[in-house]
Amino acid sequence: MGDKLPTQDNKLVVEVEMNLKAIDSSSGNGATLSETPRIDFLNNSVPTSQSNSTASPSTSPSIEILPADSIDDVFGSSIVSDGGVYVDSETLKLAATLFEDAKSNRFIEFKHTVRSLGLYILYYKSIFKWLQYLAIFVILALATIEEPALALLKGVVPFWVCIIFELIAICYLGFRVLHLASFQTRKDFWGDKKNYVVIALIALSLIDIMCYVIWRSVAPESPNHFPHPIRWSRPLRPLFIINFPQARQIRRAFRNIRRTIVEIVFVLILFLFSVMIFALLALKLFYKKGWTFRTGDPYFQNYIDSLWSLYVLVTTANNPDVMMPAYDKNNFYALFFIIFLVVNLYVFMNVLLAVIFNGYKRHLKNEVQQAVFAKRRKLAMAFDLVKEKNKDKPGYHLSLTTWFKLMKMVKPKQSAEQVTMLFQVMDSDLDNRITKAEFLTSADLLNVPLTEVKDRMILWDKLFPKFFNNTGSKFIRIVVLHKFFRYFFDFAITVNAVFIALDITEAEWFFLALFTLEILLKLYVYGPVRFVSQLWNIFDVLVIGGAMIVTSVEAADKEQKLEGETLDFILVIRVLRLVKIVNGFDRFKIVVMTLKNIGPSIIIYGGVVFIFYYTFAIVGMEIFHTRIRYFGDQTYELDKLQPDEYFCGNAALNGSEFWMDRYCSNNFNDIAKAMVVLTELTVVNQWHVLTSGFVKVTHPVVKLYFLIFHLVVVVLIMNIFIAFILEAFLLEYSLSKSKFESQFEERILKLGYALGQKKLEVPGKTQAQKESILDDMEMEVLPEEGTRFHIRQSSKKVETLLQRMFENELDPEDIGLKDLDEEKPPRKYTLDSVVD
Amino acid sequence: MGDKLPTQDNKLVVEVEMNLKAIDSSSGNGATLSETPRIDFLNNSVPTSQSNSTASPSTSPSIEILPADSIDDVFGSSIVSDGGVYVDSETLKLAATLFEDAKSNRFIEFKHTVRSLGLYILYYKSIFKWLQYLAIFVILALATIEEPALALLKGVVPFWVCIIFELIAICYLGFRVLHLASFQTRKDFWGDKKNYVVIALIALSLIDIMCYVIWRSVAPESPNHFPHPIRWSRPLRPLFIINFPQARQIRRAFRNIRRTIVEIVFVLILFLFSVMIFALLALKLFYKKGWTFRTGDPYFQNYIDSLWSLYVLVTTANNPDVMMPAYDKNNFYALFFIIFLVVNLYVFMNVLLAVIFNGYKRHLKNEVQQAVFAKRRKLAMAFDLVKEKNKDKPGYHLSLTTWFKLMKMVKPKQSAEQVTMLFQVMDSDLDNRITKAEFLTSADLLNVPLTEVKDRMILWDKLFPKFFNNTGSKFIRIVVLHKFFRYFFDFAITVNAVFIALDITEAEWFFLALFTLEILLKLYVYGPVRFVSQLWNIFDVLVIGGAMIVTSVEAADKEQKLEGETLDFILVIRVLRLVKIVNGFDRFKIVVMTLKNIGPSIIIYGGVVFIFYYTFAIVGMEIFHTRIRYFGDQTYELDKLQPDEYFCGNAALNGSEFWMDRYCSNNFNDIAKAMVVLTELTVVNQWHVLTSGFVKVTHPVVKLYFLIFHLVVVVLIMNIFIAFILEAFLLEYSLSKSKFESQFEERILKLGYALGQKKLEVPGKTQAQKESILDDMEMEVLPEEGTRFHIRQSSKKVETLLQRMFENELDPEDIGLKDLDEEKPPRKYTLDSVVD
Repeated sequence: MGDKLPTQDNKLVVEVEMNLKAIDSSSGNGATLSETPRIDFLNNSVPTSQSNSTASPSTSPSIEILPADSIDDVFGSSIVSDGGVYVDSETLKLAATLFEDAKSNRFIEFKHTVRSLGLYILYYKSIFKWLQYLAIFVILALATIEEPALALLKGVVPFWVCIIFELIAICYLGFRVLHLASFQTRKDFWGDKKNYVVIALIALSLIDIMCYVIWRSVAPESPNHFPHPIRWSRPLRPLFIINFPQARQIRRAFRNIRRTIVEIVFVLILFLFSVMIFALLALKLFYKKGWTFRTGDPYFQNYIDSLWSLYVLVTTANNPDVMMPAYDKNNFYALFFIIFLVVNLYVFMNVLLAVIFNGYKRHLKNEVQQAVFAKRRKLAMAFDLVKEKNKDKPGYHLSLTTWFKLMKMVKPKQSAEQVTMLFQVMDSDLDNRITKAEFLTSADLLNVPLTEVKDRMILWDKLFPKFFNNTGSKFIRIVVLHKFFRYFFDFAITVNAVFIALDITEAEWFFLALFTLEILLKLYVYGPVRFVSQLWNIFDVLVIGGAMIVTSVEAADKEQKLEGETLDFILVIRVLRLVKIVNGFDRFKIVVMTLKNIGPSIIIYGGVVFIFYYTFAIVGMEIFHTRIRYFGDQTYELDKLQPDEYFCGNAALNGSEFWMDRYCSNNFNDIAKAMVVLTELTVVNQWHVLTSGFVKVTHPVVKLYFLIFHLVVVVLIMNIFIAFILEAFLLEYSLSKSKFESQFEERILKLGYALGQKKLEVPGKTQAQKESILDDMEMEVLPEEGTRFHIRQSSKKVETLLQRMFENELDPEDIGLKDLDEEKPPRKYTLDSVVD
Repeated sequence: MGDKLPTQDNKLVVEVEMNLKAIDSSSGNGATLSETPRIDFLNNSVPTSQSNSTASPSTSPSIEILPADSIDDVFGSSIVSDGGVYVDSETLKLAATLFEDAKSNRFIEFKHTVRSLGLYILYYKSIFKWLQYLAIFVILALATIEEPALALLKGVVPFWVCIIFELIAICYLGFRVLHLASFQTRKDFWGDKKNYVVIALIALSLIDIMCYVIWRSVAPESPNHFPHPIRWSRPLRPLFIINFPQARQIRRAFRNIRRTIVEIVFVLILFLFSVMIFALLALKLFYKKGWTFRTGDPYFQNYIDSLWSLYVLVTTANNPDVMMPAYDKNNFYALFFIIFLVVNLYVFMNVLLAVIFNGYKRHLKNEVQQAVFAKRRKLAMAFDLVKEKNKDKPGYHLSLTTWFKLMKMVKPKQSAEQVTMLFQVMDSDLDNRITKAEFLTSADLLNVPLTEVKDRMILWDKLFPKFFNNTGSKFIRIVVLHKFFRYFFDFAITVNAVFIALDITEAEWFFLALFTLEILLKLYVYGPVRFVSQLWNIFDVLVIGGAMIVTSVEAADKEQKLEGETLDFILVIRVLRLVKIVNGFDRFKIVVMTLKNIGPSIIIYGGVVFIFYYTFAIVGMEIFHTRIRYFGDQTYELDKLQPDEYFCGNAALNGSEFWMDRYCSNNFNDIAKAMVVLTELTVVNQWHVLTSGFVKVTHPVVKLYFLIFHLVVVVLIMNIFIAFILEAFLLEYSLSKSKFESQFEERILKLGYALGQKKLEVPGKTQAQKESILDDMEMEVLPEEGTRFHIRQSSKKVETLLQRMFENELDPEDIGLKDLDEEKPPRKYTLDSVVD
C-alpha cells in the first residue's frame, strides 16, 4: 500500500514520447472506464489494476520510495496526446476527489499518494462523519444527565455511566484526529491551529476525568461542602463543535467575531466610560436624598449601585422605573435620564452596530475570498491532472470524455443528458473543449439546484388514458388548473382562520371535507409525482389527514380529553397555510424568497449562539443549581407548601421581585431550563429582575456572570447577527438570482435546454405577468422532445450565499496565488497641521 | 420700483460693442465699487444710482415693461471685454445673492428683477427670519398654557389670551407667505407644494379659532360633558416647522420617511401577518385552560387579546411574563415563545431595518444629488452674470478683481489674504482666471471651516515683554507646554473623580485650588486669545469658578441647605472633563471626532422626532388629561389622601399594575409630562403597563393610540434613525476628511499657505505621532512671514455631511440639467420558467 505514483514534472518530455506510448498502451491492460481508448501507463501503481502493461521507463520512477513529507504532488499528471485522453484510474480518482473537495468546499490538504488518497476518501465517508457527529452530540448531551443537572434526583444516573460515555466519545474524536494526521503532511497537520485545540481539549478532558474520579473516591459523600469535585472541562466542550472540519461555517463566524472584537473594543470602552461618568453624575444628584425604589431598595446608594442601575437602563430593562422616584420629586430630573438614553442607548448602541457592521462585512469578504481561492486551487489541481493537449489549439483543455469520467466518479447518479448539458454550458465557445478558466466554474455549476424534467405525463394518463381524457375529466382538469380554483381555496383557508379565531367549531367538519376534496382533486389533476414534489401539498396531506384522524377519534371517544389539545394544535397548524396566500402577491413573494434564502445562514448563527449558550449554561448550572426551585402550581400559595419550599425553596427570595414576578421556573436546575433562562436574558427585558433573584440566592459578584452574558451575547453576537442580516438581505433583496446563476440560465436558454422553450410566446408582458401566466397554465406546457432543465429557486447553501455576496468583486480567474493586496488599515489618521 | 434690467441674450452682439461702451462709461457716473474701471451700462435701472450715464440703445431695452411671469432672467449678463470686468452694481448684487444662495443652500427661486431681488434679500434678513422662528415658537409654545394643559388650574390663562397670541403669530406667518409670493413667479410659487400646505394650515387654524370662539360663547360652561369645544387644528401645528424654507433638513428627512414607507409597507404587512398567525396558534394552545397572569388577568382569553400580547412580546416589553404561566405548566411551551421571538423579533425586525436602510440610503442619495445640482445651477447663473472673456484664451472666466467684488458682498469681513488664497486654490492652473467648472466648487470652499492665523503673539508678551521672557517665566512656559503637564492634570481629574465616586469630600478644597492654578497657568502661557479659543478652557473656568463661588457661599453660610445640591451638581459636572482625557488616545479620538461630526445630523432627527412627539402629545392631552393625577409624595399612601385622590385620582386604577408600579406621574396633564410619557413609550420597556393604565381610565380603543405611536416612532422613525447613523458613521469613520477637503488642503499646501509649513520636519514617524508631536510643541511653531491657513476639524453642517456621503458618486461638473437616469425599479422580478 505504500507505492508511489510517478511524478511527472516535465510535460514537454512526455509529449515527445506520446506517440510511442499510445501504441504501447493500446495493447496493454483494459481500462475500467470503457468509453475511450485509454492506457494505464502507470501499470504498477494501482493495486486493483492488473500490472501487465508495458511501462515506459522514463515516466515510471515508481520503485523509488520517497519520504512522505517531502512530496507534495507524487501523482502523475495526465498524459497528453492527440486522439484522446489517457488517464489511469488512480489519477482520475485523485482528480475526482479534488473536484469533489471544490464542490463540497472541503479545503483540508492531503498527501497526494495512493495510500493517503484512500485514507482521505475514507475520512469523508458518511459513517465516520456521522459517528463523529454522534460523538460530539453524546459529549454535549451528557449535560442533561451529569451532575449538577440531576442534583435534585440524586443517584438516578451513576457518575461512571457518564464518564464511560464521555471516554468512548473522546476516544473516537481522538481516532479522527489520528486519521487526519495519517494522510496529511506533518506541516499541514501542525499548521492547522484547530488540531492543537482539539488535542488540547481531549487532553484536558482526560485529565479532568482522572481528577474527578480520584477526587470522588477520596471524598465520595461531600457534594455540598466546598470544595466538592467539579468537572471543570465541561464548559469547554462546545469547542469540539467549532474545531471539526465540517463546522466550517461556524468556525468562520467565530473567526469573524474574534476579529470584529478588536475593532469594537474602543467604542465599547468609550461607551462604558460614558456610562461611568453618568453614573457619577447620578450618584451626586440622587444619593443621600433618602429616596427609595418602589420595592423599598435605596435609590442610587453607592457608585457600583449607580453604575449597575444605569447599565440596566441602557438595556432599557428598568425604564421608566429607575426614573420614577426622581421624576416624582422634581420633573426636571427627567432630563438627566432622557439625555442619558439619547447618548448611550440611541447614539452609542447604534454606533456600536455601525462599527460592527463595517468590520464584519470587511472580514467576511476576506474570508469568502480565501474560500473561493482555495476552491479554485483544488479545481486547478484537478484540471492539471486530467488535462489534454490538442496540437491544433494552444493551451490545455478537457474533453467531454474526461468530463464524463470525472462526473461518473463525482456524481454517479447524474443523467448523461445533464452531464452533457453542463459540459456545453461551461464550454462557452462550443469547441467541445473546456479550458482551465472554464473549468474553474464547474464546482459552482454543480451546486446550482437543477430540475431535470424528463417525463411530464401524469400517472393516471398512463394507467387510464381513456378515462383521464374524457370530457368530464378534462373539465375537472381545467377547473383545477384555473387560477380561481386557487383563489377559492385561499379564501376558504382565510374563512377557516377567522372561524378558528372566533372559536366557531361547528363548521369544522365542513372545512375538513372541503380541504380533503382539494387534496384529492389536486392529486388527480397533477398526478402523484408532481403533487408530491410540492412541499405544501405534503404539508396539507399531513395536516388534513392528522386532523381527520384526531377528529374521528375524538368523535368516537368523547372521554379522551387529552386529544382536545392535539386536535386544537393540528387545526391551528393548518392556519400556516395562510402563508401560501402570501406567495400569491409578487411583492410578498420577494420578501418571502429572500427570507427563505438567508434562512440557512441564520441557522448557522443559531449554532454560534448555541455554543455560547451551552458554555454559559454549564457555568450557570454549577453556580446556581438547586438554589431556586419550582414546586408545581402551588409554588405561589405559601399555605400549601412545606416551609422549606417557600419562596422558590429559598428564603432569600422572600419579598423579592423575582418571587413576586413568579419566576421560580426560571432556574438552572437542568440544561433545558438554563437555556430558557439564557434566552430570556438575550431578549433582555426583565433581565435585571432575573439577575437580582440569582444574586439574592448567591452573592453580588454573580452579577458579573449576567453582565458578561449581556455584553457577549446581546451586545456582540446579536449585533453581528444584525450586521449579517443587513448585508445578506440587502443583497438578496436587490438580486433574486446571482450573476452566476443568471449566466447559467442564459446559457441553458441559448443551448435550447430550457424548460418550455419554443413553446410559449407571450409578447409585451412583464416578467411577473408571464410567470403568473405560466403558473396558471402550468399543465398546458407539454413536454418537448428530449430532456429540459430548469434552475430551481431553492434556499441557498450558506457557502453559495456568501460567495454571491462578493461575486462582483472577485476576478473569475484569480486563484489567489498572487499576493493578496494587503488590507488597508481601517482608517488613515490625518494630520491637522501639515508636515511637508 | 417696477423697473426691469435689460435682458442680454446675445453675447456676440454685446462683445462687438464693448470697446465703444468702455470708453463711454469711463466718463460716466462713479461706480460704488472702485477697484477697476467699470460701467453702469444699465443706467436707469438702479434707483439708488445716478442716471446720467449714456446707455447704448442695443443693450438697454429697459423702458419696455415685461409681464412679471414671463421673464425669468431679466438681469443683464456681464459685459465682456479684454482689459477688465465691467459689471454694474445691481448685476453684481444679483450674482452675489445667487452665490450666497449656493453657499447657504437656499434653493428657492425669485424673479431676476431689481425689485424682486431687493425683496428676496429682505426675505432672508435675520430679523424676519427670527420673527418667523418666534412666531412658530409662540404657536407651539401655546400648548403649555392652552386647554387642556391647565385643566387642573382652571382660569389661570383666559382662553382669549392664547387666541390673541396665536392670531398674531399666524398673521406674521401669512405675511411671510405673501412676502415670498411677492418675488416669485406665479409658477414657482404655486409649483412649490409646501406653500399650499402653509396656506391650508393658516386657513384651517383661522377656521378652527372661529369655531372655537363661537362654540365657547354658545356653551361656555360645559367643558366636561361631550361635545365640548376642541381646538382640532392643534395637532397640525408642527407642520408649520416642516413647511418653512429654513427647515430644509427636516423637510428632507420627512420626504425620505414618506418614500421609505412605501417600500417597507410590504415587509410590515408580512410581519403583522406573521404575528396574526402566531396569535391564532397561541389562542388555540392556551385559551380555555383557565390559566391567569400573575396579575390575575385571564391568559389569552380571545383573539384580540392574544394578538396584543404577542405584539407586545415583539417589543420584548412583556417577556418573560407572558410566557411564565404556560411555561410553569409545561416546559415545552417555551418553544412556542422562542420560535415566535426568533421569527418576529430577530428576523422580521432586522429585515425591516435592512429594507429601511436600503431604501433610505437610496432616497437620501437622490435628495443630495438634487440639492447639489440646484446649488451648482445657482453658481452657474452667478458665473454667467459676471463672467469675462479674454481674447487669448477660449471660454469665459472670472478674474481676481471680480472675485474680490463678489466676496466683498458675500463675506465682507473676510481678509484680503484669505480671498486671494481661495481664488488661488480654485485656480488650479494658476493663470489668474477661474473657469466655470472651477467656480462651481467655490460655495463648498467657502463652507470649509478655515482658521486664519495672523498674529500668534501672546498678549502678555506685548504688554510686559521683559517679564514674560525672563528665566522664571520661560521655565513656567516650558513646564506648561510639556505633555506631562497635561498628563498630570488628567491624572488629577481622575483622582478627583474617584474621590467623588467614593464620596470623600475632604480633599475638595485642594482640588479646587489645583484646578484654579491650572487655569491661571494656562491663561498665562497661552494668552487670553488662545485660551478662550479652546471651548474646554471656558468650560473649566465656568465649572471651577462656579464651584469656587458655591463652596465659598456654603462655607460662609452653613444654614443654606439648598446650596448643597447645586454644589454637588457643579462638582459633578467637572467630571465631564474626563472626556478630555479620552481625546488623548488616537483610537478614541477617531470615535469622538466621528460622533462630533454626525452630531448636528442627529439633532435634525431630534427635530423630526419632536414633530411627531408634539402631535401625539396634543392628541394625548385631549384624550387623557386629568384622568390620571399625581398628588405629591403621599400618592401611594392611601391613608394620607382624600378618597377621590386614591389610585392616581382614578378608582379605575385600583389594583392595576400602573398604580402598583407608581406611574401616577406619567400622565398627559401638561405638554412636558406628555413628552416624558412619549419618551418612555419610545424606549419601549413597560409601554404595555402604561398603555394598560390609560386604557383602564378611558376605553380599550385607545390601545390604538399607543400602537400607532409604537409603529410610527419606534418601528419607523427609530429604524430610519439607525439607518442614518449606520450610513453616516460608516462614512465618517472610514474617512476623517472629505475628498473635497483633502484636495483643498493639498492646494493650500502646494500654494505655501499652510500653517507651520517649511518649519517642521519629523521624518519616519506615523501621522498620528507627528500630530501628537505638533500637539506637544504647539507653541514652538512660530509664526512665519505672512498669513497661514489651517482647515479646522469642526463638526460638520448637515448639508456638508450629506454631500460628502455621496461625493464620490457625483460628477464634479454635472449641474443636473441633463435628464437624470431613471432610477432602477427596486428589483427585477425573475421568471422561473423561461420564456424565450
